[in-house]
Amino acid sequence: MEKVKQLQQDFADFMAKTDFGGQPAELYEPIGYTLLQSGKRLRPMLCLLANDLFGGDEQQALWPALALETFHNFTLIHDDIMDQAPLRRGRETVYQKWNANIAILSGDAMLALAFQYALKPEKGAELARQLGKVAIEICEGQQMDLNFETQKVVTIEDYLEMIRLKTAVLLAASLKMGAICGGADPKDAQYLYEFGIGVGLAFQLKDDLLDVYGDTKDFGKEIGGDICCNKKTFLLISALTQADAKGKKTLSEWLNKTSFDRAEKIAAVTRIYDELRIRHLTESKMKEYYDQAIDALRKVNTNENRKEDLYKLAEHLLYRIS
Amino acid sequence: MEKVKQLQQDFADFMAKTDFGGQPAELYEPIGYTLLQSGKRLRPMLCLLANDLFGGDEQQALWPALALETFHNFTLIHDDIMDQAPLRRGRETVYQKWNANIAILSGDAMLALAFQYALKPEKGAELARQLGKVAIEICEGQQMDLNFETQKVVTIEDYLEMIRLKTAVLLAASLKMGAICGGADPKDAQYLYEFGIGVGLAFQLKDDLLDVYGDTKDFGKEIGGDICCNKKTFLLISALTQADAKGKKTLSEWLNKTSFDRAEKIAAVTRIYDELRIRHLTESKMKEYYDQAIDALRKVNTNENRKEDLYKLAEHLLYRIS
Repeated sequence: MEKVKQLQQDFADFMAKTDFGGQPAELYEPIGYTLLQSGKRLRPMLCLLANDLFGGDEQQALWPALALETFHNFTLIHDDIMDQAPLRRGRETVYQKWNANIAILSGDAMLALAFQYALKPEKGAELARQLGKVAIEICEGQQMDLNFETQKVVTIEDYLEMIRLKTAVLLAASLKMGAICGGADPKDAQYLYEFGIGVGLAFQLKDDLLDVYGDTKDFGKEIGGDICCNKKTFLLISALTQADAKGKKTLSEWLNKTSFDRAEKIAAVTRIYDELRIRHLTESKMKEYYDQAIDALRKVNTNENRKEDLYKLAEHLLYRIS
Repeated sequence: MEKVKQLQQDFADFMAKTDFGGQPAELYEPIGYTLLQSGKRLRPMLCLLANDLFGGDEQQALWPALALETFHNFTLIHDDIMDQAPLRRGRETVYQKWNANIAILSGDAMLALAFQYALKPEKGAELARQLGKVAIEICEGQQMDLNFETQKVVTIEDYLEMIRLKTAVLLAASLKMGAICGGADPKDAQYLYEFGIGVGLAFQLKDDLLDVYGDTKDFGKEIGGDICCNKKTFLLISALTQADAKGKKTLSEWLNKTSFDRAEKIAAVTRIYDELRIRHLTESKMKEYYDQAIDALRKVNTNENRKEDLYKLAEHLLYRIS
């Protein structure tokens, strides 16, 4: 993973020399606050690796990489208003630290900035088109997620479509934008996109799993958060689908309780998941997406050796513990 | 103004055949609701007229025109959340009719859509760059405006910079994007931009004036709304600057009252404006910007006859009564 480390460093350097300042300070401070924190930088990495796969110029690809990171953080800022979330990655959200209006506006500015960055390289028009497409899809995914909160029945198909739109398409677009920047054949760019969809779906299912079966120490946040707030995850929806009449009744009772002991609810719901082998079911589904991803990556017409980092990254995301 | 009417019709037809629908409905309904209402379509008109000035292909220019209208309406939707405004042009705002989260998300989607539209024509990359620039400036202007609400002292210079960013740059960019689409020389595109800045500043000062000196019947909303809520307009800031000690005291007393008779406050503040000849001062400033606008338009290197509609439009905006 020498190359990944190098690209990570290059991207960190690129961000460090980018000026996120401006006037009025109330607009720009939240942008710097958000972008200059440490983060996985997963989307920039996918973009830079895809560009590198086709021998593209890294200096050009740093722009869409920055566009993707800026765009991703815009979505987090606006999501945090909608969820009224006080914390993210252990830090105050923009919504909490400033206020909702500032979070709306600095988010808007970041979305516009993301397009500005995407438009910098030679292939800017095509990169910006991809960004526009994914931006609209992510709004659709977020709206579906909001709808699920009050929707009585959510099917597995609805859920998978929601996470495709809310999570997977941005990983896929990161790869595709890198590929476009690197001059890939459209067919290869599309295979990489499909690789990203598979990885992204598996990535989100892993997130759902970690909330229940993760280790608090590694996970970095409390286990069972999704269970406590009745979040409709792959696990809960599967359990509701698979349970027999008695299981469904017990589960419904827990979902409808307005007052409960947190630990008790988590233990009870987890027990139902265990009885229904929901962990196994989720891991099988993840494996299915992972295999689809690998199949798509194999079809990309470059030397297999060059794909090594992408195979490893996919594997890493699947077996991560946090 | 035959041409203007024709372009208005063409734009209306273009919008009517554009599909603003999609899933989930909660995301797309507010977009259709907002875009398919009647409106002045001022920004599309400026774009189409500028394109026409250079003999550009109208079919190409309809895309940036649609981008500008979509973008403008995105700013209104988000502004209405920030102002908690229940009504706009006599209709419920998206914020009021649905909720803040839906207004945030459908606004975000419209900003992304605006870029998608701007990217359609041949010169898409340059058009999208202009849109990105103006989008960031408008966020700056809106943040300045929010800051003014709690800021004790706002200078005339600050105010003019705020309305330049919040209002004028979008009219200017509409003209410039039309010019770019029409294949104008960069120098001519820039002159048109300056024409737009002058017209935009005069346009906003006229808005400030109409709130106090407009006719309720023509104006379409209550007179004195700005006075009632202490909105820092060109009129109020000028009055605070020009008044003597006694006048300042009277004005401050009215600004600080938490309970008052609406009509009485409007009459009292208007009386102060009258004594200080604020109407005349504002009209002089408008004339100054109008003259600057006309000077810039004269410099555009095309046949003067072709500019007739733009001269008339500027005049119309200056002498409008609503």
